[in-house]
Amino acid sequence: MDYGSEAIKRHRETRGKVSIASKMRVETMDDLSIAYTPGVASVSMAIANDKSESFALTNRANNVAVVTDGSAVLGLGNVGPEAAMAVMEGKCILFKGLADIDAFPICLATQDSNAIIETVRNIAPTFGGVNLEDIAAPRCFEIEAALQDLGIPVFHDDQHGTAIVVLASVINALKVVGKKIGDVKIVFSGAGAGSIASAKLLLDYGAKNILLVDSVGIVDESRADLNSTKQAMLGITNPDNISGDLATALQSADVFIGLSAGDIVNQDMVRSMANGSVVLAAANPTPEIMPDLATAAGAAVVGTGRSDFPNQINNSLVFPGVFRGALDARASAITTKMKLAGAEALAGLISNPTPECIIPWSLDPVVVPAVAKAVSEASTS
Amino acid sequence: MDYGSEAIKRHRETRGKVSIASKMRVETMDDLSIAYTPGVASVSMAIANDKSESFALTNRANNVAVVTDGSAVLGLGNVGPEAAMAVMEGKCILFKGLADIDAFPICLATQDSNAIIETVRNIAPTFGGVNLEDIAAPRCFEIEAALQDLGIPVFHDDQHGTAIVVLASVINALKVVGKKIGDVKIVFSGAGAGSIASAKLLLDYGAKNILLVDSVGIVDESRADLNSTKQAMLGITNPDNISGDLATALQSADVFIGLSAGDIVNQDMVRSMANGSVVLAAANPTPEIMPDLATAAGAAVVGTGRSDFPNQINNSLVFPGVFRGALDARASAITTKMKLAGAEALAGLISNPTPECIIPWSLDPVVVPAVAKAVSEASTS
Repeated sequence: MDYGSEAIKRHRETRGKVSIASKMRVETMDDLSIAYTPGVASVSMAIANDKSESFALTNRANNVAVVTDGSAVLGLGNVGPEAAMAVMEGKCILFKGLADIDAFPICLATQDSNAIIETVRNIAPTFGGVNLEDIAAPRCFEIEAALQDLGIPVFHDDQHGTAIVVLASVINALKVVGKKIGDVKIVFSGAGAGSIASAKLLLDYGAKNILLVDSVGIVDESRADLNSTKQAMLGITNPDNISGDLATALQSADVFIGLSAGDIVNQDMVRSMANGSVVLAAANPTPEIMPDLATAAGAAVVGTGRSDFPNQINNSLVFPGVFRGALDARASAITTKMKLAGAEALAGLISNPTPECIIPWSLDPVVVPAVAKAVSEASTS
Repeated sequence: MDYGSEAIKRHRETRGKVSIASKMRVETMDDLSIAYTPGVASVSMAIANDKSESFALTNRANNVAVVTDGSAVLGLGNVGPEAAMAVMEGKCILFKGLADIDAFPICLATQDSNAIIETVRNIAPTFGGVNLEDIAAPRCFEIEAALQDLGIPVFHDDQHGTAIVVLASVINALKVVGKKIGDVKIVFSGAGAGSIASAKLLLDYGAKNILLVDSVGIVDESRADLNSTKQAMLGITNPDNISGDLATALQSADVFIGLSAGDIVNQDMVRSMANGSVVLAAANPTPEIMPDLATAAGAAVVGTGRSDFPNQINNSLVFPGVFRGALDARASAITTKMKLAGAEALAGLISNPTPECIIPWSLDPVVVPAVAKAVSEASTS
């Protein structure tokens, strides 16, 4: 199927994907008097007297804003808020379909960090959580950091959703190859939001030796071109201070994690990795190396970002369950502990990982309840 | 029924009133590939190449933001955004139930005009229209005025929804008493957002003699305490420059319009009005004068804001149809011409007005299509 033309046809027929549904009937004057005036005045006063009642008497507790500035949409780049809307609506119906969360797209006509921060602050009373989406780095880091005091979870999915599914994949891939997280050399291609958050979560989980490689080369102390985010990673990655390109980085590496661009890893690079190598080539739509090539070059476990190969490393395994758990617990933030618990729960759904199955299928109905339970419990324990 | 306690009980059971519904199925990988990646990329690119496609390929064309700062909620006052949420959700389900519009509450954590204006500008790409609601005067005027260049209709319902239903009521009430709009003396009790907008629309319709009375007295040239909005009304109201209180204003008046507070008009005041007087006492929940008292004192036509008396003057007769018409026409604003057309269409639904029936019932299913058609046609003619 030509998904692109079919998508345009279907979107034109339905005029998009997200609509509003009413949870209360308004057919009689009594209905109107209960849902609206005069009855609703008592509901408003109950909330005015105790703001936490907004989580019990309105839909706030189940509302998530899916906020973007349209600056880093899919692999399309800076397409703007109107174009981003189609993707955000897709995210919203996944929230609804997978986790019964009422997510609403908020596509912003600004790409200024302070304006984004202020806008999210201003609209926050409507929501129980905020999913930041497709906002370019390094702006995404400062926006998320500035909003952690809102009192509701603010979660940049491109960072932490990616990090959680990457960690879950690595946990099970290492089981397949019989290696321990503290012993392996992990190489990231790409040093954007997803890679940096993934590297941090892997370190939190016990990884000791991570190299980040961007388009210039390995992130090392000799680099004068690093932005502040990459500079901050120097202290916690590249312990041997290795310099060079991606091919150099991959020599005797145990795990490759690609969150970058298609076709930038060749078979020689895979051959140079350690025995029992793990290749997670998640660039979309074209992986860093096609899985058949990686396998032929000796990779023991291979994953991609695509649904038409085994082991799809996909955020949709993560964000619905993480928010379901955080909303259920009325958590005020999504902490590292909650992220680790979510990744372990996701990995734990595969009782006997194999090279062809380290991670569940995106739409498997067991995923959300398992992730949600782990995240919710980790928020309160 | 005790609507207040019933409302709290029901809202607690349902956790509010507004939820999200998906317009596209996501059950298979093909579904996911069409609604989300990779197919949605083509939809985004189609919009990036032609922003107007956001009205055809996303739900934008049917999305209305119901925006409040919680500063003037019902008769409750400045209860804040969390408490306002219950009322905004009520408005949203009326939009959905009456006009199939997907309205979403946006309750703001700021009461600063510039911050509200910037926030609405920033979130506008998601929406086909903006309904400003329960924002205190005079802030509401500047906010609405500043947003008229957004390219989508921005409509402060407390002003214009009120004005349209008041004009429709006056049109039919004058038919009952056999008077012409250009000949009558009209007295408003209250000089807030609703009264000022109603007075302006009545003037646009042909009224010549309108008095505004606030808590100090008649708005006249001797007043040193008038804010800029009321000062601006001096040039178009009170042509004889009458001074005094509400009782003075009502002497030989033909029409009383109350958008103020309960029990401030007595029977002597009604007796002092002209023969064939019209008393529209719309304060909620207690009218300026109870309808039985007004009738006993000689009023020929009486209306209130309440559903338990005849002639309920209620914005819900207006906003669903006005937005339906504006969205259908993809109007960039709601003009005076559209407001006049909406009022005339609403009045026209009552073919033979009587003292007990000058205006349709709020939930009458003929209302929205008639108002929408008139508003839509007036936007393009």
